Parts: sequence; structure tokens; C-alpha cells
Amino acid sequence: MSSSPQQPKRPLTILQRSLNMKVSVRLKNELEYRGRMNNVDSYMNLILLDAEEFNGANAVANYGKVVIRGNNVLFIKIEKDL
Amino acid sequence: MSSSPQQPKRPLTILQRSLNMKVSVRLKNELEYRGRMNNVDSYMNLILLDAEEFNGANAVANYGKVVIRGNNVLFIKIEKDL
Amino acid sequence: MSSSPQQPKRPLTILQRSLNMKVSVRLKNELEYRGRMNNVDSYMNLILLDAEEFNGANAVANYGKVVIRGNNVLFIKIEKDL
Amino acid sequence: MSSSPQQPKRPLTILQRSLNMKVSVRLKNELEYRGRMNNVDSYMNLILLDAEEFNGANAVANYGKVVIRGNNVLFIKIEKDL
Amino acid sequence: MSSSPQQPKRPLTILQRSLNMKVSVRLKNELEYRGRMNNVDSYMNLILLDAEEFNGANAVANYGKVVIRGNNVLFIKIEKDL
Amino acid sequence: MSSSPQQPKRPLTILQRSLNMKVSVRLKNELEYRGRMNNVDSYMNLILLDAEEFNGANAVANYGKVVIRGNNVLFIKIEKDL
Amino acid sequence: MSSSPQQPKRPLTILQRSLNMKVSVRLKNELEYRGRMNNVDSYMNLILLDAEEFNGANAVANYGKVVIRGNNVLFIKIEKDL
Repeated sequence: MSSSPQQPKRPLTILQRSLNMKVSVRLKNELEYRGRMNNVDSYMNLILLDAEEFNGANAVANYGKVVIRGNNVLFIKIEKDL
Repeated sequence: MSSSPQQPKRPLTILQRSLNMKVSVRLKNELEYRGRMNNVDSYMNLILLDAEEFNGANAVANYGKVVIRGNNVLFIKIEKDL
Repeated sequence: MSSSPQQPKRPLTILQRSLNMKVSVRLKNELEYRGRMNNVDSYMNLILLDAEEFNGANAVANYGKVVIRGNNVLFIKIEKDL
Repeated sequence: MSSSPQQPKRPLTILQRSLNMKVSVRLKNELEYRGRMNNVDSYMNLILLDAEEFNGANAVANYGKVVIRGNNVLFIKIEKDL
Repeated sequence: MSSSPQQPKRPLTILQRSLNMKVSVRLKNELEYRGRMNNVDSYMNLILLDAEEFNGANAVANYGKVVIRGNNVLFIKIEKDL
Repeated sequence: MSSSPQQPKRPLTILQRSLNMKVSVRLKNELEYRGRMNNVDSYMNLILLDAEEFNGANAVANYGKVVIRGNNVLFIKIEKDL
Repeated sequence: MSSSPQQPKRPLTILQRSLNMKVSVRLKNELEYRGRMNNVDSYMNLILLDAEEFNGANAVANYGKVVIRGNNVLFIKIEKDL
């Protein structure tokens, strides 16, 4: 399954191309983390900078730099994309 | 298990052939996401565009572009198919 | 563990030989899906056509074509077999 | 870890040698399925014939032929053995 | 990590050397099974003979020969060891 | 996916470069452990020194040296970074 | 990622170097086991000798020799280290 430029991009490729974008990461425990996605790997382990923890609409904690283990990720919403 | 043209298609092949279709994705946490399936890989990681989150019949949130981690997927309903 | 024609068939082989049969698929979340098994792979990812969702004896939803992720499957009951 | 005839048999070998025996299969969801074990593979995926579902001592459903996905199995009790 | 005779034995080696010992097997669902460990493999799939199911201190069922799927095992207590 | 010096660093590389930093490790059971990250591997198994267990804002236990199994990790917050 | 003598040690190496130490093993079900760590493998399967089961501060059971399956381990606290 190689990808030529005119094909749609695979999910992990899209994540790689969204580095430094603002993202919202929903985890399986229903908490959400918002911040700048500094990096991500194929397991969806990711580094968030200027991260905030949300429980519903309320920011409940601020984090500087946090490494989220990929197996907890439900989805990653890319807020702004090139 | 090679597939010849007259055989029915394997599940992952069907997903690949349904790119850009409207889909409903039910996750293990019972929430459902509806949108256009921009791409999907063999792990069922997928990209939804114009995604909406449903809790039962109610749209509870709108997302632009969201990457869903495949291990959370219960099923993918393909709304329209070629 | 090769199989000769006189040996009983392995579970995944039986599933492959039951394509286009009517099946009931019980998932770990206790819901049940009934339909025609269009295809299935070794992970038990499967495609159901004319699928209906049951909660106990009640059909609670109708689906056209649905791809179920295999890791959610509890069992597959084969309704009619050659 | 090869096995010579005088060694005790490995668990998966015992299952293979118990084909067509009556078995009770307890799943992680506490339900139990009883029937004839038509076949089983190394993942403990198995085919039951003349299967009955039990919730404690009560048979709650009858199935003809059912393929159980191995990862749900808690244990397999072999009712009669050669 | 090879083992010389004077090194302590690895966990799976200890299990192999405890065949035919009396063991208590605690599962993740909190039930406990006691019997003679006829065999065990590297996944901790094991065969118990003369098995009894305990819920706390009470024997709640008797089994003859049972194959327990290793992924459910919390721990195996070896009652008597050479 | 090789990394040149001018690329952002992968999550596991960032963890490796944060050895001996103060970290907070949130586990899936909602408890949090704070201490100095003596080492970490690619599975996110990690060694904490001078570790304290927190339940919300309260330190509920002190540990000297603790090895946390990576599959329980929700995220690792790096308190100070070079 | 080879380790030279002056580097900090990897988590699994630290465990190997802590054989015969007193350890406390917290499992995912919140129970804790204390004893002498006779051996451990890379999966964190471990053998405890003179093991005691704790529910909070209370010893609730005594075990002689117990093999704990690694996937249940939350953390291992090394009580005394060389």
C-alpha cells in the first residue's frame, strides 16, 4: 500500500504532517488534553507542549510538557491544519 | 488467502475501497462519530472529515478533522458504497 | 498442523467456508448483529450485509453494510451451513 | 521444549487431542457454553456443535454451530477424555 | 539471558519444574482454582487435574480436567515444591 | 523516519533525554507518582527514585525506588527539562 | 541503546540486579504482595518467596512460593537495593 502524491494520506502520515499544530487529544478515561503536538510516533505516543487538561468544558490543570502513551488515545482532533 | 476478482472482498479491502464515503464509526465507549472517511489503515486507524459526535440520536459536538485510533473501533457502517 | 480432507476443519477455515451465510455476531458489549457474512479475515474482522442490531430479542437498528472489528467479537453463530 | 511420548502433554496439545469431546467453555463475561468441540486452534478459537448457553445452572439459549473467539475464553473443561 | 545451574531459575522454568505439584491458580475475576498442574506452557495456559473452584474459602464446583487460558492468570501458588 | 538534528524529537527520544529530571507519572488507575526518572525504556517501563504516590493533591505514600510497568502509564509530565 | 557502565541502568536490568531483595508488588487489582524476589523475566513475570498478600496495611494471606504473571503488575517497589 504505497502512497503516491495524488492519493489521500494515511492516518499516521497525517499526524506526522500536523506537527506543531494545536490538537485536542481525547483519552479513554474521557479526559481531554489540548496543546501543541510537538511530536508523535506510529503508536500514537505523543508530546504535547503548553498542555491543558479538560474535564468537559473546564480546564482542570495546566501542564508544561507531557508525553501521552499512545494506547490510551481515543482520538486526536487537529484544530488547524495546513 | 489470495483474492481473485470474482471472490468477495476482505474487510480491510472494503474499507480501502470506501474512501471518501460517509461512514458512522461506533466506538467501544458507545459514542458514534459520523463523517467522511478520508483514510484508514489496516489497524482501522482512520481520519474523519466534517466529523460529528453523536450520543444516541443527538449530535453533541462538531469536529473538523479527527484521527481515531483503531483499537477503539467497534464497527464502521458504510453509509453509501459504490 | 496441516489439515487433510478427512480432518475436522479449523475455526478460521470454517468461517471462510461460511461466506454469504446468515450469521449472528455477539460482541463483548452484549449487543448482537445479524446479517449475511460477506467476508471475514483471520482476525475475525467481518463484513455484514443487511445487518440488524439486536439488544436481546429486539431489533434496535438496521444497517446496510457494516465492518465489525474482530477484537470485539465474542462469538459468531452460523445460522445455516452447507 | 519438544515433547517425547512419556512427557505430560502441553495444554494446546491436550485440546487438539480432545476434539469431538463434550466441553464446557466459560467465558470472561461469566456465561458458559456447552457442546461438542468440533475444532480448536492455538489461539483457543473454537467451534462448538449442539451448543447451549448457560447462565449458572440454566440453559438460556440453544445454538447449532458457534465459533467462539479465543481471547474471551476463561477455561475449557473437558467433560470426557480418552 | 542464559541460565547456568548456580543461577536462580526463571519464572517459566520454575513452572515447568513444578509439573504434577498441587497449585492454586488465582484468576483476574478473583476466583481460584486448585488442583494438580498437569502441564503449563510459556503463555501460562495450564491444565489442572482434580480441579476445584473456590470463591474465597468455599469450594463452589468440582471439575475433572480443565484447561485455563493463560491471559486470565493473576498468580500461581505452588503448594509443594521439590 | 530517521531524525536529523533540526527535526522535533520523537516521544521516546524525549523521554530518554529527560533522565534524572523530576516527573509526574499518571497511571490508568488515576493515581500519580512523582519522583526523579532514573531510567525508562521503549515500553515506558520506568524507574522512579524518591517516589511519592499522590491521590489528587495528597501524598499518600513514600517509596524509595520503584519500577513502574509501562502498560499502566497514562502520561508522563516532565517537570523540568534541559 | 547499548548501556555503558557509567550510564543509568534500564528498568529490566535494575530488576535483574535486585534478585533476592525484598520487594512489594502492587497489582492492577490493588492488592499488594510482599516477599523476596527470587526471579523475574522481561515480561515482569516474577517468583516471590515467603510471600504475603496485603489489602492496604493488613496482611490477608501467607503464601510460600508464588509465580505472578507480569501483565498484572502495576509497579514493583524495591525495598533494599545494593
